[in-house]
Amino acid sequence: MAKEKKVEQITDMEVDFAQWYTDICRKAELVEYASVKGFTILRPYGYAIWENMQRIMDEAFKKTGHVNVAMPVLIPESLLKKEGELVNGFAPEVAWVTMGGSEELEERLAFRPTSETMFCDHWSRVLHSYRELPMLYNQWCSVIRWEKTTRPFLRSREFWWQEGHTLHETAEEAQAETEQQLNCYADFFEKVLAIPVVRGRKTDKEKFAGAEATYTVECMMKDRKALQGATSHYFGDKFSRAYDVTFTGRDNKLQYPFQTSWGSTTRMIGAVIMAHGDNNGLVLPPPIAPIQVIVLPVAQHKPGVLDAAAALRDRLEAAGLRVKMDDSDNSMGWKCAQYEMKGVPLRVEIGPRDIEAGQCVLVRRNDGEKTVVALDELEQTVQEQLELVQQGLFEKAKKNLDEHTYAASSIEEAKALQEEKGGFIKTMWCGDVACELKMKEQAGMSSRCMPLRQETLGETCACCGRPAKTMIYWGIAY
Amino acid sequence: MAKEKKVEQITDMEVDFAQWYTDICRKAELVEYASVKGFTILRPYGYAIWENMQRIMDEAFKKTGHVNVAMPVLIPESLLKKEGELVNGFAPEVAWVTMGGSEELEERLAFRPTSETMFCDHWSRVLHSYRELPMLYNQWCSVIRWEKTTRPFLRSREFWWQEGHTLHETAEEAQAETEQQLNCYADFFEKVLAIPVVRGRKTDKEKFAGAEATYTVECMMKDRKALQGATSHYFGDKFSRAYDVTFTGRDNKLQYPFQTSWGSTTRMIGAVIMAHGDNNGLVLPPPIAPIQVIVLPVAQHKPGVLDAAAALRDRLEAAGLRVKMDDSDNSMGWKCAQYEMKGVPLRVEIGPRDIEAGQCVLVRRNDGEKTVVALDELEQTVQEQLELVQQGLFEKAKKNLDEHTYAASSIEEAKALQEEKGGFIKTMWCGDVACELKMKEQAGMSSRCMPLRQETLGETCACCGRPAKTMIYWGIAY
Repeated sequence: MAKEKKVEQITDMEVDFAQWYTDICRKAELVEYASVKGFTILRPYGYAIWENMQRIMDEAFKKTGHVNVAMPVLIPESLLKKEGELVNGFAPEVAWVTMGGSEELEERLAFRPTSETMFCDHWSRVLHSYRELPMLYNQWCSVIRWEKTTRPFLRSREFWWQEGHTLHETAEEAQAETEQQLNCYADFFEKVLAIPVVRGRKTDKEKFAGAEATYTVECMMKDRKALQGATSHYFGDKFSRAYDVTFTGRDNKLQYPFQTSWGSTTRMIGAVIMAHGDNNGLVLPPPIAPIQVIVLPVAQHKPGVLDAAAALRDRLEAAGLRVKMDDSDNSMGWKCAQYEMKGVPLRVEIGPRDIEAGQCVLVRRNDGEKTVVALDELEQTVQEQLELVQQGLFEKAKKNLDEHTYAASSIEEAKALQEEKGGFIKTMWCGDVACELKMKEQAGMSSRCMPLRQETLGETCACCGRPAKTMIYWGIAY
Repeated sequence: MAKEKKVEQITDMEVDFAQWYTDICRKAELVEYASVKGFTILRPYGYAIWENMQRIMDEAFKKTGHVNVAMPVLIPESLLKKEGELVNGFAPEVAWVTMGGSEELEERLAFRPTSETMFCDHWSRVLHSYRELPMLYNQWCSVIRWEKTTRPFLRSREFWWQEGHTLHETAEEAQAETEQQLNCYADFFEKVLAIPVVRGRKTDKEKFAGAEATYTVECMMKDRKALQGATSHYFGDKFSRAYDVTFTGRDNKLQYPFQTSWGSTTRMIGAVIMAHGDNNGLVLPPPIAPIQVIVLPVAQHKPGVLDAAAALRDRLEAAGLRVKMDDSDNSMGWKCAQYEMKGVPLRVEIGPRDIEAGQCVLVRRNDGEKTVVALDELEQTVQEQLELVQQGLFEKAKKNLDEHTYAASSIEEAKALQEEKGGFIKTMWCGDVACELKMKEQAGMSSRCMPLRQETLGETCACCGRPAKTMIYWGIAY
């Protein structure tokens, strides 16, 4: 008889969303705490999701001419300090190397919190002519920010990311790059992660330290809190001037190039958990799922079942899918629960009766929908079902976003909507940081972004009543 | 008229091998010095080589069941110190983080010099049963070792690598893994990098700190110095015991698992430079070349030439090759020199006369051999020529290795051979470290390895005359 292995239980998201989240991180074996406070280990299953994300993004970056490099992980303090806003923004979170071997270092070295300074330092030595522009660089690495409170994927002292850094001849080109990369992120969220986003610009208060403008893709999680997905920054020539990066222009004169940077991190895995997960565990969009299809033999001790299941696996693998068959002696109930916990998008079941009928059964992870499929239509139907999973995930997340975005015309109204319904509250805004602080203080919400797609909700700022300049989204953010 | 851009000159290797090496690193734009002493920047072309190496190795690792993970970069001092030999081996080279933000840390944290300790710490918390074994983990990351003197790729304070770490139920399985991974490295060197290797075991003096046995693939560079290519270590259950990693065995009792680790680094790029490079620059084996074929239009201002060249490029790209066409206004001489410097394995030239004759010209980087090919046989001939480049590189390197491996029966003879000829000197050895030290002191050579393929050169140790236990290779190493 099949060994009865206990199915792991997780907290219901309606009972305790934070605990539900942590339970998934641990029980789906994505992540484990390390013995260094605030640091995490990406376990094989979690890292495999990250590898899939990396591969897809890296391909997109390369298609638009970007190349990868590796910069040193340590930055001399004097170099970090050359641009005042950046260092002020990051100094409280920097980890410092002060000893090499048994020697005290003459100058302490920062573990990179971000690498604008290193890229500028390098460019100041290798850039000569406008002919070498644009320089479209990216690197995949980990960074450290010494956060006080941490949560797996969302906020940890070390995290894994990509940071793009580019240099351009003109401001217009750099602005176009900033926008292109914002759209690249938006596409990745919507088409790959199945998470709809609001594209917008950050307020001066919320922008990246040292940037002239920061653009963001903002997402809504199932608890209706906001999550900043990825950001794209335009720097003008501010860093070029601070780090003395110059080139000989078409006019034969020395000029300062214009710069961008853009980043996305392992926090995207957290976004996927909270955008699609349910009380049975993780739900993964097929493009990033380490296992896209799990094949489970039913009554596998009966003659022919294992062979039939293995044949299905082989066919689906040959069709280019990531497939696993589980023929362990665990019970069927345990196996179903296990692969639901791990968010495998599609389950294929085949037993003696199916074999007789020349069919198998497909079960979608996201909505439990079952489809009986004739064996000779297997590959095509599995592909279709995976597309339906992807579509279903996006539509559900889009519904959540649309239904929980509310307009308000005063702080009181915004506050009441947030407390009663939750989600994004949109208002008009005068552009004054004082009003932003007031919204935070009185309604507990930070500004998320000024959406690129603007609407006119009224004429006056919801916070102070003065003439409004822009529509803005507010929310409670991760 | 074509702009005459100056062709960069490099030092001849016969004049100054070290300077020749550094010149290639810089002029082929592989690497640049960073503003942090002893640290380097992998530039796009250098990093693209590393990406190709990574992709091929990662695939090989995954084929044998290995999975990737990410461990924290910082290791608490107390954790690092649990295994005495390891910490003694690495302590002098560790970079220490002592501050997080503005706070002094209670315990200082080591920037990983290697991650056995982190893997063991993790396993001590997640491993329970023999059913979960083997655990076959790998990670791609950078490590820091605070070296006194540094050289690009060969020895730098930060370098990029993969470190495999595996846990097994039995000693036999762990030993088999150690051997399998050694062979995986040997295959990578010989089949991908076209560098022949000597597989062998390190002496106790030269083995990895804390290992029971270290295996190595040793290569010979063009200056006949030795380079340790990659290493594979067997740990027995020593670390399991030190870090309290246990599992419930088949006998229902607690047991200590057996462990291996194995690593290879960006130093392999240095090996490629010194095994294949020449006085015109880098020579890259096709499997790792960022550009495998460079297409150069001849007399490109003439009608039809650019279109014909672009058509060749498109056809070769469609055939799955990494191809670039250079239609810049630099001179033909400059372009040829430039792509030779960058080590592009094959050059395709097409001009008006070729078009008329329905042909193009292929030129191999490694030996300058020209082949005229009919356009309708392009893809096949290019593939054949690339295979000939790969073969030619391996054969030349193999000849260098074979012709500069000498047998000696005394320290004096070994010393004279090294001074007159250079290369590997093989002798019999008694196994005593005192003899190893004597060889170093008197002949300036370190032991490279005890080859797995043994020969009997005599009965007695070349250093002391006592009965010999093994044949050993000596050399001057990078």
